[in-house]
Amino acid sequence: MSTAGQVIRCRAAVAWESGKPLSIEEVEVAPPQKDEVRIKILFTSLCHTDVYFWDAKGQNPLFPRILGHEAGGIVESVGEGVTDLKPGDHVLPIFTGECKECPHCLSEESNMCDLLRINTDRGEMINNGKSRFSINGKPIYHFLGTSTFSEYTVVHVGQVAKINPEAPLDKVCVLSCGMSTGFGATVNVAKPKKGQSVAIFGLGAVGLAAAEGARVSGASRIIGVDLNPSRFEQAKKFGVTEFVNPKDYNKPVQEAIVEMTGGGVDRSVECTGSIQAMISAFECVHDGWGVAVLVGVPNKDDAFKTHPVNLLNERTLKGTFFGNYKPRSDIPAVVEKYMNKELELDKFITHTVPFSEINKAFELMLAGEGLRCVIRMDE
Amino acid sequence: MSTAGQVIRCRAAVAWESGKPLSIEEVEVAPPQKDEVRIKILFTSLCHTDVYFWDAKGQNPLFPRILGHEAGGIVESVGEGVTDLKPGDHVLPIFTGECKECPHCLSEESNMCDLLRINTDRGEMINNGKSRFSINGKPIYHFLGTSTFSEYTVVHVGQVAKINPEAPLDKVCVLSCGMSTGFGATVNVAKPKKGQSVAIFGLGAVGLAAAEGARVSGASRIIGVDLNPSRFEQAKKFGVTEFVNPKDYNKPVQEAIVEMTGGGVDRSVECTGSIQAMISAFECVHDGWGVAVLVGVPNKDDAFKTHPVNLLNERTLKGTFFGNYKPRSDIPAVVEKYMNKELELDKFITHTVPFSEINKAFELMLAGEGLRCVIRMDE
Ligand SMILES: NC(=O)c1ccc[n+]([C@@H]2O[C@H](COP(=O)([O-])OP(=O)(O)OC[C@H]3O[C@@H](n4cnc5c(N)ncnc54)[C@H](O)[C@@H]3O)[C@@H](O)[C@H]2O)c1
Ligand SMILES: NC(=O)c1ccc[n+]([C@@H]2O[C@H](COP(=O)([O-])OP(=O)(O)OC[C@H]3O[C@@H](n4cnc5c(N)ncnc54)[C@H](O)[C@@H]3O)[C@@H](O)[C@H]2O)c1
Ligand SMILES: [Zn+2]
Ligand SMILES: [Zn+2]
Ligand SMILES: [Zn+2]
Ligand SMILES: [Zn+2]
Repeated sequence: MSTAGQVIRCRAAVAWESGKPLSIEEVEVAPPQKDEVRIKILFTSLCHTDVYFWDAKGQNPLFPRILGHEAGGIVESVGEGVTDLKPGDHVLPIFTGECKECPHCLSEESNMCDLLRINTDRGEMINNGKSRFSINGKPIYHFLGTSTFSEYTVVHVGQVAKINPEAPLDKVCVLSCGMSTGFGATVNVAKPKKGQSVAIFGLGAVGLAAAEGARVSGASRIIGVDLNPSRFEQAKKFGVTEFVNPKDYNKPVQEAIVEMTGGGVDRSVECTGSIQAMISAFECVHDGWGVAVLVGVPNKDDAFKTHPVNLLNERTLKGTFFGNYKPRSDIPAVVEKYMNKELELDKFITHTVPFSEINKAFELMLAGEGLRCVIRMDE
Repeated sequence: MSTAGQVIRCRAAVAWESGKPLSIEEVEVAPPQKDEVRIKILFTSLCHTDVYFWDAKGQNPLFPRILGHEAGGIVESVGEGVTDLKPGDHVLPIFTGECKECPHCLSEESNMCDLLRINTDRGEMINNGKSRFSINGKPIYHFLGTSTFSEYTVVHVGQVAKINPEAPLDKVCVLSCGMSTGFGATVNVAKPKKGQSVAIFGLGAVGLAAAEGARVSGASRIIGVDLNPSRFEQAKKFGVTEFVNPKDYNKPVQEAIVEMTGGGVDRSVECTGSIQAMISAFECVHDGWGVAVLVGVPNKDDAFKTHPVNLLNERTLKGTFFGNYKPRSDIPAVVEKYMNKELELDKFITHTVPFSEINKAFELMLAGEGLRCVIRMDE
């Protein structure tokens, strides 16, 4: 019996207030409207951004809300006007979209869609400014347009990447956010050439995905930089060849890196969110050709500061958002890279838990344990 | 009778002390040593950098010195080991060199040669740490390794571009520094695509050469930004289509430019040396794909400051030195662009004076009149 056009009742993990454990509730999920898709989520993983908005410190609190944005699932039904997706398609919902019509979507370089660019403050669907989730008729807010901590969710078609149906969703779900962000920052933006040296600032999941990008690009040296020495052991599995802890030096870490590389690294990728690391990542690249790429999300009041001569000496500074990938156009090919064994993902998935134990995933992340915890929705 | 191997006695304009008129003296010019070339200068033009080091405010004073670095001439004789230049070759001496062997010279991207990179503090030849100029045996310092305010000068072979002998030296001499710097900043670094918008900060000679680069690239809008409204009339001849004076707004000029372009310009090139203009030039480019290029030489204590989100929104910030041209490999082709009428130079040459009146060129520049004054050495 088809559920298309019907309200679906299913389980969702609802965040009722900031910092309190999520509670699994029965929710009503309305059918998809114009340009929307309803997706049965099979696997979702937890990313820091979920925790930030759950914790809601320094963020606009918006509750009750269904969090979640890294996931894989299958299209259950499509709304009016959706032609390039159909029930049964395997998909990754993505926190930022691609309308295919705005100047950004039409530009070869940008993925910052005017219509569907990430909006962390929005709790409703853009179509009619209403939520598709409710409990006893009372609306529950969406998160990033994805809200994947629900057995069914409704997503704008522009935020859905259609992928190879043979790809294991319990693995490729992590490409919805963090892994693509880090990997793309290196391969699409820093673009190290074979044999070049790369410094990665921050060895969390995003930084290790950036290191994976450096490995795939054939970097000769991959220098991992982190304040937390416990990050180093794990990083070896990700191709990191040398470790630098800024705390071990009584000079700015960029000076240490310039010395150990005879002039600076060819490329650097910053994945910390620390403004100091951003400045170091820029100042440690070689003059003449060095490229530094910023990925980490800074604080509101941070200022990036450097002497302009560091730029005049032919260094390049760039930032990136979601690894410069256009979600619908580019992510299917990243999934293929995994299928062809060019890109490794399994090593990022250090934990899995059943949906009923989703709060354990939060505990692991808060304790800084592991990289990605995949949540199995059917359990 | 050949002068090769002999000391040549000729006229040179000597700066005896900071800020005092140059005086034309008879100097002795020693023969070129290993890897050196002696050049008969036919035309030289005056650039701000000459004036800075003559004025020597905030610069290391080094006197007596023979200034000058934009010039065209003919090889008189070559020193030991020089194989790719011979007497009679038409050449442009360049203030920064290309050894063809160091990592920068071997890199496709850099022109910041380790051996021959600009060194404003050096007054001698690198070969033996001595000057080739003297008056009654007392050494006179070199400037930038070029010292073109002399009928004959000695230059390291790595600082000499061999050009088409049919190119008029009284015109292409300006490609030795300023015109190549601005033009290259646009065509080699900012690289606007056909139809894109370009903002040029600073409408001096360098900025107008950057505008010429935008015109040649087929830019649709070339927005000139300058604090001095008198710069605007002239700029029209250089393809500048719109003018913005930061003083006409009671908000940062970058905001005005973002408004008038519906989101920002595609490219910007800063040619002022003002740190405020550098920041504005960066913040006025479009998110997603905008590229800002810094050319101006800042003060020692300046700090480039911006919110890192401006970078994360996929803007690129770069700096360039001599327009990223490798002097020996690339400048001959820029001369050809002039010969093919792809690049206009004549409009930059607003004045000419005989060598005997070289101080007039200084007066014109100090009064802010004109763009380039070409000095005819034979008069
Ligand atoms: N631009 C995007 O599209 C995008 C997408 C996802 C995540 N992010 C951002 O990427 C960053 C990294 O995410 P993550 O999930 O890997 O975070 P994480 O917290 O797991 O890892 C960050 C690491 O950086 C290290 N660190 C902090 N300050 C440092 C410093 N000054 N020098 C060196 N190391 C330092 C920490 O010890 C930690 O190991 C975050 O800022 C996140 O918000 C950006
Ligand atoms: N990177 C290199 O290789 C290289 C080579 C040559 C010259 N330069 C530098 O390029 C810059 C320009 O050289 P030029 O000879 O054209 O100088 P110039 O003095 O003739 O022109 C500079 C212009 O900038 C304008 N200006 C100053 N501050 C401004 C501001 N805040 N906003 C807008 N306009 C402003 C001035 O009014 C002036 O018209 C200088 O800093 C020079 O040192 C760099
Ligand atoms: Zn779009
Ligand atoms: Zn995420
Ligand atoms: Zn070199
Ligand atoms: Zn100059």
